[in-house]
Amino acid sequence: MPYAPEQDPVLTLTTGPVDAYAAVLRGLARPVLYDYDPAFQLTYERVVADKLRRALRSAGVPVLLHGEPVLGLEAAAASLIRRGDVVLNLVSGVYGKGFGFWAKRYCAELIELEVPYDEAIDPGAVEAQLRARPDIAVVAVCHHDTPSGTINPVREIGAVVAAHGAQLIVDAVSSFGGMDVDPESCKADIFVTGPNKCLGCPPALSILGVSDRAWARLKANPDAPRASMLSILDWEDAWRRDAPFPFTPSVAEVNGLEAALDLYLGEGPERVWARHAGTAAACRAGVQAMGLKLWPAREAIASPTATAVRTPEGVDEAALRAAARARYGVVFSSGRGETLGRLTRIGHMGPTAQPIHAATAVMALGGALAAQGVRVDVGAGAAAAMAAIDGEG
Amino acid sequence: MPYAPEQDPVLTLTTGPVDAYAAVLRGLARPVLYDYDPAFQLTYERVVADKLRRALRSAGVPVLLHGEPVLGLEAAAASLIRRGDVVLNLVSGVYGKGFGFWAKRYCAELIELEVPYDEAIDPGAVEAQLRARPDIAVVAVCHHDTPSGTINPVREIGAVVAAHGAQLIVDAVSSFGGMDVDPESCKADIFVTGPNKCLGCPPALSILGVSDRAWARLKANPDAPRASMLSILDWEDAWRRDAPFPFTPSVAEVNGLEAALDLYLGEGPERVWARHAGTAAACRAGVQAMGLKLWPAREAIASPTATAVRTPEGVDEAALRAAARARYGVVFSSGRGETLGRLTRIGHMGPTAQPIHAATAVMALGGALAAQGVRVDVGAGAAAAMAAIDGEG
Amino acid sequence: MPYAPEQDPVLTLTTGPVDAYAAVLRGLARPVLYDYDPAFQLTYERVVADKLRRALRSAGVPVLLHGEPVLGLEAAAASLIRRGDVVLNLVSGVYGKGFGFWAKRYCAELIELEVPYDEAIDPGAVEAQLRARPDIAVVAVCHHDTPSGTINPVREIGAVVAAHGAQLIVDAVSSFGGMDVDPESCKADIFVTGPNKCLGCPPALSILGVSDRAWARLKANPDAPRASMLSILDWEDAWRRDAPFPFTPSVAEVNGLEAALDLYLGEGPERVWARHAGTAAACRAGVQAMGLKLWPAREAIASPTATAVRTPEGVDEAALRAAARARYGVVFSSGRGETLGRLTRIGHMGPTAQPIHAATAVMALGGALAAQGVRVDVGAGAAAAMAAIDGEG
Amino acid sequence: MPYAPEQDPVLTLTTGPVDAYAAVLRGLARPVLYDYDPAFQLTYERVVADKLRRALRSAGVPVLLHGEPVLGLEAAAASLIRRGDVVLNLVSGVYGKGFGFWAKRYCAELIELEVPYDEAIDPGAVEAQLRARPDIAVVAVCHHDTPSGTINPVREIGAVVAAHGAQLIVDAVSSFGGMDVDPESCKADIFVTGPNKCLGCPPALSILGVSDRAWARLKANPDAPRASMLSILDWEDAWRRDAPFPFTPSVAEVNGLEAALDLYLGEGPERVWARHAGTAAACRAGVQAMGLKLWPAREAIASPTATAVRTPEGVDEAALRAAARARYGVVFSSGRGETLGRLTRIGHMGPTAQPIHAATAVMALGGALAAQGVRVDVGAGAAAAMAAIDGEG
Repeated sequence: MPYAPEQDPVLTLTTGPVDAYAAVLRGLARPVLYDYDPAFQLTYERVVADKLRRALRSAGVPVLLHGEPVLGLEAAAASLIRRGDVVLNLVSGVYGKGFGFWAKRYCAELIELEVPYDEAIDPGAVEAQLRARPDIAVVAVCHHDTPSGTINPVREIGAVVAAHGAQLIVDAVSSFGGMDVDPESCKADIFVTGPNKCLGCPPALSILGVSDRAWARLKANPDAPRASMLSILDWEDAWRRDAPFPFTPSVAEVNGLEAALDLYLGEGPERVWARHAGTAAACRAGVQAMGLKLWPAREAIASPTATAVRTPEGVDEAALRAAARARYGVVFSSGRGETLGRLTRIGHMGPTAQPIHAATAVMALGGALAAQGVRVDVGAGAAAAMAAIDGEG
Repeated sequence: MPYAPEQDPVLTLTTGPVDAYAAVLRGLARPVLYDYDPAFQLTYERVVADKLRRALRSAGVPVLLHGEPVLGLEAAAASLIRRGDVVLNLVSGVYGKGFGFWAKRYCAELIELEVPYDEAIDPGAVEAQLRARPDIAVVAVCHHDTPSGTINPVREIGAVVAAHGAQLIVDAVSSFGGMDVDPESCKADIFVTGPNKCLGCPPALSILGVSDRAWARLKANPDAPRASMLSILDWEDAWRRDAPFPFTPSVAEVNGLEAALDLYLGEGPERVWARHAGTAAACRAGVQAMGLKLWPAREAIASPTATAVRTPEGVDEAALRAAARARYGVVFSSGRGETLGRLTRIGHMGPTAQPIHAATAVMALGGALAAQGVRVDVGAGAAAAMAAIDGEG
Repeated sequence: MPYAPEQDPVLTLTTGPVDAYAAVLRGLARPVLYDYDPAFQLTYERVVADKLRRALRSAGVPVLLHGEPVLGLEAAAASLIRRGDVVLNLVSGVYGKGFGFWAKRYCAELIELEVPYDEAIDPGAVEAQLRARPDIAVVAVCHHDTPSGTINPVREIGAVVAAHGAQLIVDAVSSFGGMDVDPESCKADIFVTGPNKCLGCPPALSILGVSDRAWARLKANPDAPRASMLSILDWEDAWRRDAPFPFTPSVAEVNGLEAALDLYLGEGPERVWARHAGTAAACRAGVQAMGLKLWPAREAIASPTATAVRTPEGVDEAALRAAARARYGVVFSSGRGETLGRLTRIGHMGPTAQPIHAATAVMALGGALAAQGVRVDVGAGAAAAMAAIDGEG
Repeated sequence: MPYAPEQDPVLTLTTGPVDAYAAVLRGLARPVLYDYDPAFQLTYERVVADKLRRALRSAGVPVLLHGEPVLGLEAAAASLIRRGDVVLNLVSGVYGKGFGFWAKRYCAELIELEVPYDEAIDPGAVEAQLRARPDIAVVAVCHHDTPSGTINPVREIGAVVAAHGAQLIVDAVSSFGGMDVDPESCKADIFVTGPNKCLGCPPALSILGVSDRAWARLKANPDAPRASMLSILDWEDAWRRDAPFPFTPSVAEVNGLEAALDLYLGEGPERVWARHAGTAAACRAGVQAMGLKLWPAREAIASPTATAVRTPEGVDEAALRAAARARYGVVFSSGRGETLGRLTRIGHMGPTAQPIHAATAVMALGGALAAQGVRVDVGAGAAAAMAAIDGEG
């Protein structure tokens, strides 16, 4: 009695889009107000200037862009990078690499510091690179390179970049809200994230933390998009209840975001992060107890919001995920680009960051491997995941 | 006992965002699936290639872009217009004028054929202009220039442009779904609309009908955005269940759109249009019976999806709308740009295109005028609106 | 283009079931918890012992019965009335009369004090009746006899009954939440209401305020239902988070009720009542300006939560309402029993208690009358309703 | 990081109330129509006379009562049993026993055929009893005695009772929709179930299948409740679009039921039953592989919709469930009455009847036992559950 492709699955344990919190779904279903209705203008100001700002632990008012986080990343590249700039792109995975393509479009020279895609960037190497090229004006780093499930030390990198005087773009799309990271602690000038990962919303919005230095740079950049979907500048004052919107905000998604922020601030960020960390730890324990290998070179750089599992030799990774879905109704994410076919990702994001789901994921992964002819000890995996949850791992 | 600004109003009779259909709100609240989940891939194909295509009465498969319709318009300009192009922009209002700013960014020469903002474009004038400048490669027209509440004869304009051989961009954002217009009947090469007006969804998506000729032009344009939020090309095949998405689609909004299309196709387009037309007719009758003047120069060019009412001499239009909201909980739209302060707009879009709402709008507008010291005969307005509904107007 | 019977109407202006507040609908859609889940037990205690108690302005903890308010009324009769009792039933309408049928089932002798169904009970007459029959043990009165749209002076009646020493059952189903009435101010021993009228919930629950004296009487009554759907006693302690439920509570409806109470207490009872009163006043003004007659003999006894309009001679009342729905999508309530066919009721309850809806109702009623061949001045009606809203009535 | 009591749990695997299907929650959130609105009258007829009838595979039109299924059971007892009747109540558990209390209230003599609460009724014994007492007029049996997780052979019992000529009341509240049972195959005269178990709705409605013989008996019974919440007769014709409702139906719950029936009929009853059976089989395999004992004496009588697990010696069952919730966010049901404290129940009903949830339940139960000091092999349990799912058990 397999789950048919057209049936909704039982459990979506992906790295995004992730299942939304029930309260967020209800938030999306609020009546749609006119964007210039005073009630919506108050909502927008409250969401952005109060709730989102508190969630970001930010001094300045963040910016909401009305497209999924790749809009935020593309807009950051298009806005912060000037034609003559030398840009240093730190690459430890597919998403870090991908940002380089946008950066190249806008800068004079792109330098990349690249490590294997199961490794993390060394802040010392960044420092050396910056010393070698004092003309580097902008540095970009992906905090959680999701297709690898690895975390870069953005706090240390941020300190190095700030000492150098360059501006820093941090892609924290799939880490923010699931672990301890925020714009100021990593000295990001533009910090890009979204509600559709660890905050448990659907994809449709970008969240940007923009430092005062970055606002100054944007305003001084004649090529920074204006009157465009790609513009950050257009939205600088849009959060004010009496300021106009440059174009129509995504009313329903803003309502959903408010529900997500209420949950996040209500549960308490530290508790939310602990929930993510505990889920990931249980998942890693279970996966390894089945004899599988994590994709990250070391557990220390494994993400608390996604566990990337190396595909065993000879296994068709797409068939593996298809089996997990068809047999158990459990959905995982594939790799992307270079990691596609080489790893499977189990997401621990927002509503799915529940330790018990890690144990379930381990069993489903083990069962699906068995279906591919790879015998693993599902019982050992489950037991290890449970022991980790119970603090006995 | 006025309605406080922070309270939700009773009735949102705006020109967008409009109130969403209840079924659309429930659609938004569906569980959020992984975009590569087969169930979502099937949904996406069904929504775009079947339901949306049928709604657009289109031979080709339409394109969904994941930002509100200004994204579709900006993307159309950025993609279809080549650097050396001469572009003819037809301007009968603020939105038509606005498109020129985007067009100018991408073309060699921008020609504008402009009429007063309470008038409509004359197809004969378009023909003359095209004859005068055979090098015009792209023509752009706004079907319903919402800030004026006027309709341009796109069918006739389309015939003229097609005969000339230029490509045509039609902005039908606030008319499609509320009246008889579709890409092929007006020979549009890129037809831009959105679900957030007459289809009764929240704002967050653009719908594009792209002709074969336009696809060919896009592919031949080296400057057409690729790997960008502004790209149309990226999404050409994304509707196929087995094709990748260039980036993450707005899952919840797609679910909402499906609910809207089910309503639209279920009620029957002709019935939906009749509902819009009947509401607008009642509204015009009521407004005029109170001695007010429509903004459109002639009733023949007044939109069936929005009624623009000229602000009487000496009235503060913002205060007028504020009074309608505070006293009655009824929200109207202001003008935009040149029409701001000079007219008030009553929307008849999607769920608000109900004739009885027109009578209510007339009363609320009349009452709000009275509050501004302009005595109008509210009873006469109401009676005229009702008579129009009853076919006695 | 009439509204088809299978289509949802535009505006439900009935006396119940009424349209629910949007926030209530979202409350109903919360995940369904196990009734013995501690989170639900806390919810139940919070809703009943805190929020509902505050709404009822009650010293004791109210009781929730899990069926629409007729359950509460039947249970009150079955529980409070003892076999040997003489019961005085005050009858000013169909609902008051109906309660007598239940009372008769349980008592030794039923005395009825009846006035015409467009009148209200005179407290003096109650006093006289009680003096004449000192053996009367229980008195019952319907506060708002909905099928007549009339209000009885329960505060004065309560004082008389209390002085006499009998126990008082008050049916405040369709008045509580829409005007100033609560168990203690009318000295009710059992006060029955429901969330499905002025609180803006769907029908499925009964709310009972039970005085200490009534609890004592119930416990002393060997025939009071126990282990039954009709039991009040079963539920006495069910609100406590650690007490068992006698049977399964209606989880979703309790969640909906919580949303409704949050709205009611948040807006402020006095403001909510003013909204109801203002709507009814506008409705009465409009209806009378069209030359129609209210059903209540005097405006002083007309309900602020429903306006009953006498059906003009020769009009088929069912056809009248059908016309209002088919032409305008506006739904009214019929009379019931003796008032069926003789009046039409326009509800002002919860989300529909908005003054502008009164003006719309007047127009729709006027238009529907015209469709029945009765010419009324719709404009005069609309103007009078609007003037009343604007405080110029 | 335990789950706090006030936090929603992660997974509600109870025997009711159960989590509702997402589509049912959206159904509950539909606009609330007036019960006499033609659109609602059509809905009610469609739900009851078409969809529910098809789900029940019933020739006659079923009855909906507007309270959770204990209302249906109490109403069945009150309506079908006549004062002089001899009633045979078949008791294999707490719920069967409980029905006797109601039966006793209405009959002349109550005979009980009782087996231990981990056993099932033997149809041969029923036959013998009926032969011994030819005056037995009504027989009652609980199909799935939920507090025991055991199934009685109602088909065989029904044949015996029919041959005898008595009328049969079947309580199939927690089995219908999750396994192959319906009124006619078990020759039930009154078949009581509810949407709040295997159909995945919240609790608030009773569903009754009433045979022609039962209708005749009800009508002939002068004591059968009329004009009462306990009445079945009141509702006989209420499903007809043009018939009145005896009191107000629970509009939102009816909308939720329609969504549930659409899911049930859409997925296909046989597939739904297989999903339930597969989940239960996996659960039993896992539980037993951990060395735990099922409550039912034999696996053959274990319910496919709930697995009752005997509490190991010395374990505090309430603490066990509390640990499962606090540690893993997983909620189970306790026993009831005689089985309280002696077993834990894992529900497989509606949306929770997913095999993978069985494996998760096994782990959570195992982990919670460990927390109570009972070491079980969680890994073996998980592995056995997974093997059962994969058809290798």
